[in-house]
Amino acid sequence: MTAQTVAEIPADVREHVHETARGARTAARQLALLTRAQKDAALLALADAVDAAAASVVAANVQDLERGREKGLPTNLLDRLTLDEERVHAVARGLRQVAALPDPVGEVVRGSTLANGLQIRQVRVPMGVVGMIYEARPNVTVDAAGLGLKSGNAVILRGGSAAASTNTRLVEVLRAALAEQGISPDAVNLLTEGGHDAARALMTARGLVDLVIPRGGASLIQTVVTQSTVPVIETGVGNCHVYVDASADTDMAVEVVVNSKTHRNSVCNAAESLLVHRDAADRVLPAIMARLGAAGVTVHGDAAMEGYAESAGTAHVPVTDEDDDTEFLSADLSARVVDSLDQAIAHVQEHTSGHTEAIVTADRAAARRFTTEVDAAAVMVNASTRFTDGEEFGFGAEIGISTQKLHARGPMALPELTTTKWVVEGDGQVR
Amino acid sequence: MTAQTVAEIPADVREHVHETARGARTAARQLALLTRAQKDAALLALADAVDAAAASVVAANVQDLERGREKGLPTNLLDRLTLDEERVHAVARGLRQVAALPDPVGEVVRGSTLANGLQIRQVRVPMGVVGMIYEARPNVTVDAAGLGLKSGNAVILRGGSAAASTNTRLVEVLRAALAEQGISPDAVNLLTEGGHDAARALMTARGLVDLVIPRGGASLIQTVVTQSTVPVIETGVGNCHVYVDASADTDMAVEVVVNSKTHRNSVCNAAESLLVHRDAADRVLPAIMARLGAAGVTVHGDAAMEGYAESAGTAHVPVTDEDDDTEFLSADLSARVVDSLDQAIAHVQEHTSGHTEAIVTADRAAARRFTTEVDAAAVMVNASTRFTDGEEFGFGAEIGISTQKLHARGPMALPELTTTKWVVEGDGQVR
Repeated sequence: MTAQTVAEIPADVREHVHETARGARTAARQLALLTRAQKDAALLALADAVDAAAASVVAANVQDLERGREKGLPTNLLDRLTLDEERVHAVARGLRQVAALPDPVGEVVRGSTLANGLQIRQVRVPMGVVGMIYEARPNVTVDAAGLGLKSGNAVILRGGSAAASTNTRLVEVLRAALAEQGISPDAVNLLTEGGHDAARALMTARGLVDLVIPRGGASLIQTVVTQSTVPVIETGVGNCHVYVDASADTDMAVEVVVNSKTHRNSVCNAAESLLVHRDAADRVLPAIMARLGAAGVTVHGDAAMEGYAESAGTAHVPVTDEDDDTEFLSADLSARVVDSLDQAIAHVQEHTSGHTEAIVTADRAAARRFTTEVDAAAVMVNASTRFTDGEEFGFGAEIGISTQKLHARGPMALPELTTTKWVVEGDGQVR
Repeated sequence: MTAQTVAEIPADVREHVHETARGARTAARQLALLTRAQKDAALLALADAVDAAAASVVAANVQDLERGREKGLPTNLLDRLTLDEERVHAVARGLRQVAALPDPVGEVVRGSTLANGLQIRQVRVPMGVVGMIYEARPNVTVDAAGLGLKSGNAVILRGGSAAASTNTRLVEVLRAALAEQGISPDAVNLLTEGGHDAARALMTARGLVDLVIPRGGASLIQTVVTQSTVPVIETGVGNCHVYVDASADTDMAVEVVVNSKTHRNSVCNAAESLLVHRDAADRVLPAIMARLGAAGVTVHGDAAMEGYAESAGTAHVPVTDEDDDTEFLSADLSARVVDSLDQAIAHVQEHTSGHTEAIVTADRAAARRFTTEVDAAAVMVNASTRFTDGEEFGFGAEIGISTQKLHARGPMALPELTTTKWVVEGDGQVR
């Protein structure tokens, strides 16, 4: 049925996307041969160009914001869409940070000399052409271009229509700066025409595009994952749990739960669900509920949890089965009291989105069981779920957080944008 | 359109596959917790069980062969389908070899202590449930079960209908032996009902199946890659080139070309295309053509190549554009004389299937350019293309050869059947 899908895409849109991809492939061949010094110099030049163009970028952004307001975009979307001069300079600083990171290309992952004298080594090489499909934030446009350049990949960017003017201006600036550096501007491409058809043409351009990374809400990711015939890295949906074990230290439990939920509730590594062992409930829940209430959190609780919320004067509603599988991305938290570690692990195994799961415990055996039996990109012991992040892990950059098992799992940085090649050198060996 | 596809699958077939997958997921949880000692003991018990059941396996295989002859299967397919007692014992030996291999599960890939004291480590863990869709060879059934068990994965096997009786008997034997070892028999599952619908239900069972690996001809792989909504590792199509550079040693060029093409021509790492630099043609081609002719190879050549073939009395036909992209898997070889290294690299870049490409040269700069600019899973200098192989690389086992860039590229062994998990341990750290 892929054939049908592709056929449904208007021929002119498909041809435009394929033409763009062919240009990107040619550029990718050049990028793969650049030295780190050449790439870093280009990244710094791109940063200077973005700084210099700040006023025109903001002007383009104002057009997007006006269109957004006319269309009645919600405030939080308008905020994500907004680029003032300071944010533009922050985006440029991001490019300079990427220049300072080590180059993954050329790293020898492993190697050996075989019994017959053949020398084999597995070397990191760029993916080639990487497609990015994302929503409002225009900073992703520059971040993706910078990470792509550093890792030797050409990128084809499919941003949200809400940010069309800003993205168009940013990519103009980047392409001009690349050309000045003697690098093909086709290393960075933006798809503005064709709407969803263009996105579908991109994700079905097998042989022209090596990888597609969707960044955005669950529905965008689901669409790409199910419709793409190009390999995809699924990112970001996080229905993260914090389980407070019977043996948990009270203060630690309060701080980890509150930080996981309230430090920033609109992100994928924020906690969405709280599980507390019955034996710890009286000890930890009064303080947890008070702090959550003070932070404006509404608890979706079972009967026991609603009781603790009520006593603390914290907003609460009855938890539903749907809540157990919901990534609220808001000041809402599903919460249940459990009778045992087994019940907690079973609940997490049933409802995890495979992003980040945390246990707070003083019991070494409980920690070992939780980290071994829970299947997620990151499993935390006595730490906030908010630590699952490329910057926090010390990667210096992040293209997204993979919640799939293939290729990359957890925070993705530069090495995850590369593949490998076996180089085999001999003196005429035959079998 | 995935929704449509799934809808096209008869409900009873889909439910049977999903029920099988749910059972496999439960078994996978047990497998993930087994120690290497437990898995190795089980593998040896499986090997003994296969040996003990040899007669009944051969009897089942005879039924498949009879059905195959009635259906008029070609001889080479019947040969691949055949399991005599010796081949059954060879399959059992394969299980013992897997038991002797290191366990990838639990390997710490990398780790560090962050500035805030958090200890993070990336640990290899099983994928979970791996689907295998393959064709005639019944030995794949046991190989996949053994590699799956060693890497802690439950497997769902979708073998070719031609081998249905043999596969059914083999899986009966494996499941019974697993049960005797106290391991859930649902660690190894065979889909025999539902024909292509069952295969499509397997490759669209997102959330129940973690990975699908197709093994077989180009059309099978293309179908899985384009129709699957479960992550796929593409394997095996090899349109491998050997380029003889101007500076190539004559004897080395002859041996590498002849071995790459004729050592075994039905495999994916056999050479399908020969490129020779014009300046080396008179020196190397008379001997190459004579040897290829003696091996019964038909040369699909350009005018120059046909001339050398004619002089050597080697069968030849004019090369077509289609030949340039054809994996013959037979005693056929497309062959062209090129004017330069640039032309050779451009030709390979245009026609490579991303499997294995080889250069024969004495020129260090030419070798460096070829290995850097050619984008394939393996690039060989002065060695036969036949060396791209898990056994040859010293992996001890091979589940297939990936020709994609995501997750695994080149020969795949046990580590490629695992993913990773970040384990983060702290003392109450928050952001």
